[in-house]
This record gives sequence, C-alpha cells and structure tokens, in this order.
Amino acid sequence: MRYEEFTIEGRNAVIEAFRAGKPIDKLFMLDGAQDGPMQTIKREAKKHDTFIKYVTKERLDQISSTGKHQGVIAYAAAYEYAQVEDILEAAREKGEQPFIFLLDGIEDPHNLGAIIRTANLSGAHGVIILKDRSVGLTAAVAKASAGALNYTPVARVTNLVRAMEDLKKEGLWFVCADMDGEVMYDLDLRGAIGLVIGSEGSGVSRLVKESCDFNAAIPMRGDIDSLNASVAAGVLAYEIVRQRMVKK
Amino acid sequence: MRYEEFTIEGRNAVIEAFRAGKPIDKLFMLDGAQDGPMQTIKREAKKHDTFIKYVTKERLDQISSTGKHQGVIAYAAAYEYAQVEDILEAAREKGEQPFIFLLDGIEDPHNLGAIIRTANLSGAHGVIILKDRSVGLTAAVAKASAGALNYTPVARVTNLVRAMEDLKKEGLWFVCADMDGEVMYDLDLRGAIGLVIGSEGSGVSRLVKESCDFNAAIPMRGDIDSLNASVAAGVLAYEIVRQRMVKK
Repeated sequence: MRYEEFTIEGRNAVIEAFRAGKPIDKLFMLDGAQDGPMQTIKREAKKHDTFIKYVTKERLDQISSTGKHQGVIAYAAAYEYAQVEDILEAAREKGEQPFIFLLDGIEDPHNLGAIIRTANLSGAHGVIILKDRSVGLTAAVAKASAGALNYTPVARVTNLVRAMEDLKKEGLWFVCADMDGEVMYDLDLRGAIGLVIGSEGSGVSRLVKESCDFNAAIPMRGDIDSLNASVAAGVLAYEIVRQRMVKK
Repeated sequence: MRYEEFTIEGRNAVIEAFRAGKPIDKLFMLDGAQDGPMQTIKREAKKHDTFIKYVTKERLDQISSTGKHQGVIAYAAAYEYAQVEDILEAAREKGEQPFIFLLDGIEDPHNLGAIIRTANLSGAHGVIILKDRSVGLTAAVAKASAGALNYTPVARVTNLVRAMEDLKKEGLWFVCADMDGEVMYDLDLRGAIGLVIGSEGSGVSRLVKESCDFNAAIPMRGDIDSLNASVAAGVLAYEIVRQRMVKK
C-alpha cells in the first residue's frame, strides 16, 4: 500500500520529517487549523517550497492509513531528487550532448514511471519535473519505472520556464510535443536537446510552449485527440534516438 | 462484477462514448458541477435522451471501479468484440494495406487501453488480443483508451499462432517486438503488416516469435531491461508510420 509506506501522518512526525531534510512532495492540511504546531508546519513548508493543499477532515480521514493524522498528512518521496546540475554532469561524464526530458505537470504515477523508464532507455541524462501540479517520486512511480529511478536522475523545479532559460545558456534547445507543430520527421532533433512533454489533461502550458524552439507533432491518423502522455514521450524520444543514430 | 464491465468513467471517456453513438443507459454526475466538460456532457445526454442522476462525490466514489471518475460515471452496454474479418474489412473500406496490432498477453488494463489508443492514432485497423492471459475490455481499459475503443475494433482469439497463419493467407507479414532482433530502423516495415507486442512480464512467447517474419529491436541505451509495453508498442507503431510516410 502506497500510503502506508510513503505518507507521514501527525504533527510531530511531519515537523520532524521537514527538519530532517526529508523530501516532501505535498502536504494535506485541515482547512482552517491555526494552532501553534500547524503554524510551524506551514513555515517549514514555505521554507522548503512544499505545496500545501487545504482539505476537509473527511478528505484527511480518507487519505489516512493510521487514522491518527491530527489534521496533517505529508507525502514523502521514496527517492531523493537530483539537481539539474547533476543531470548536466551525467552528460559530461559520458561525453555526450545533453538530452533531458522536461515534464510540464504529469499527474499519473503510472505515466511518470513509464516516462522515467523511457528516459533511461532512450539514453536521456535525466528528467526534470514540476514541484506543483505533478506527482512526485512515490512508490507507485518507482514501481512503474521498473528500476529506472535507480539510474536516471530526476530533478524538481518550481518554474519550468526559468529552468529552460538556464539550460539554454548551457547550449540546450527545446522541442515541445504539440499537435499543432511541425511533423517530427521534418525537424532536426540532434544536438543538445530538451524534450518537453505536457500534462495528461492540458498539454504543454502556454509560457512553456513559447520558450520552446520547435513544436514537434506526432502524426495523428485516427479518430481521437491524443496519445497517452507516456506513449507520446516514447515516440518523440525515439525519433530523437533515430536521428542521432541515422543522420550523421 | 457488473460495474467493472459496464461503466465508463471520466469526462473525456464519457464525451467520446456519446459522440461515437455508444448506447448509454444512465449517467451519474456530481451535483453542482458546472464547468465546460460537464456542460458538454449534459448537452450530449439531452441529445441522446439519457437519464441523468445527480449524486454526491461519496456516491460516485462508491460506484467507481477505477477511482478516477472526475465527477461523471456512465452505465453503458459492454463493448462488443469484433471479428478478425471486421478488421480486414476496415482496411479494405479505407483502401489501405492492413495494419494490425497483435497482443500476446497484455495483462494491465492501463497498458491495454493505451495500446488501443495508439492503434487508433497510428492508423491501425484493429487490435487482436488473446482470450486467456489477457485483460478484457473492462471499464478501466475503456477509460485508458480515451475513447479509442469506440472506433478501433478489438478481436479476441484463442490461439495467436493460428490467427497469424490465417492472416498470412491475406498477405500480411509479421514483425515481433524483440530485444534480440534487428534494429527497427534497418527493417522494411511497409506493406500489409501485423505488429506483435509481448506481455509485460515475459515478452513474445516462443511459438509466436517463430511465426514472425522479422524481429524488430528498439535500440536500448540505458541500464534497465525493457520499455513499458504500451510505450514499446507506440515506438514500433510510429516507426511503421514513419516508413509508410517517408519511404515511398
């Protein structure tokens, strides 16, 4: 059970987890609770850029596995997050042009795990995810990654556009998955590259899309709207692999 | 379990079901939900004379089998399986060379749904699954297919090798996803083709592999063993799409 292994429940336990530097993805707090310990938790959350979701007691009871949440439940990461710099370093160590996945809000753990798995096998050096609007590195994600989380660094950022700007200074350029873009086979996807994948519901957000150098479309020959996010990531990643292998 | 087989859950899945003319008996919607997709669903329901029952979130959670109803659950007639002949007929109607997915034992509903979704968008004419050792067309599969089940015929066979022999008489040849095969970019994947995808755990079974004309390998540049089955299906399917588009 995911919740038994990766949630921290109760005021003291959550405060301790923050102070021990445990990576906490998300915090569920009882709406309206204002007492001392709850204020302390809010301060810690702010200090660590942790996203707080205010919910009802009923919702907390539902999430809780111990039944003793005292108004607060934290989702802790099973795995440690890397820094963006670690990903660039991994590329340098291999003597390769950086190849990074950037995920603009993947919410389904099955998808995130499958994407990290694809990043590993397509030779990407790491994955960058959002702090908010994204599932973190939970047990379900680790399981769906089929071990890839042990090899492929995952960094977490607050602002994807800013991360892209920093990476542009390192020579990366960016391609967004976008239905309205140019057919991917017609683009030159070699070199130092960041592959941007949008969220399941709403795709790549506007500001992120504007920061991309190219919009790549996967050809659609059917009746429905879009591929599953992890399948789309795989198809685009392997077009990059193909071009790196075939076009010299 | 009636609910596992006969409900459609989630906004997109319900909208797609209506638009595809699927018979829907009854609709459970979250009381008070007024956003765009919910309004669309209400309009579709009115157009199709479907009875709407407004209920609480707790009631929806109770009815839900996927846990991801997004405020709407439809009771629909179960999906009918197609015959292999229907798939060939679909290709004939479009005046195209047949392109069929054959799944050698996909067990995860999320994967099966994502593969049917990919089959639809890559222009395949249908999907053949196994009667045993495979998940059927459940509500979870329908939801993960994001509406593709309304368009893409799925046939069920007892013996995949026998189905392949029959299809060879129709001019199809078969490519298996196989790590030890030839790199997919070096194969000619045009023409009437069956794409064979193995199960999550054990890949393509021996007898099925022996019936394949080619074994196609996706290049692996990482540390772990294999891609997620639905991602592998997507990567191979789109190599077929690319060759059909680019190589004339």
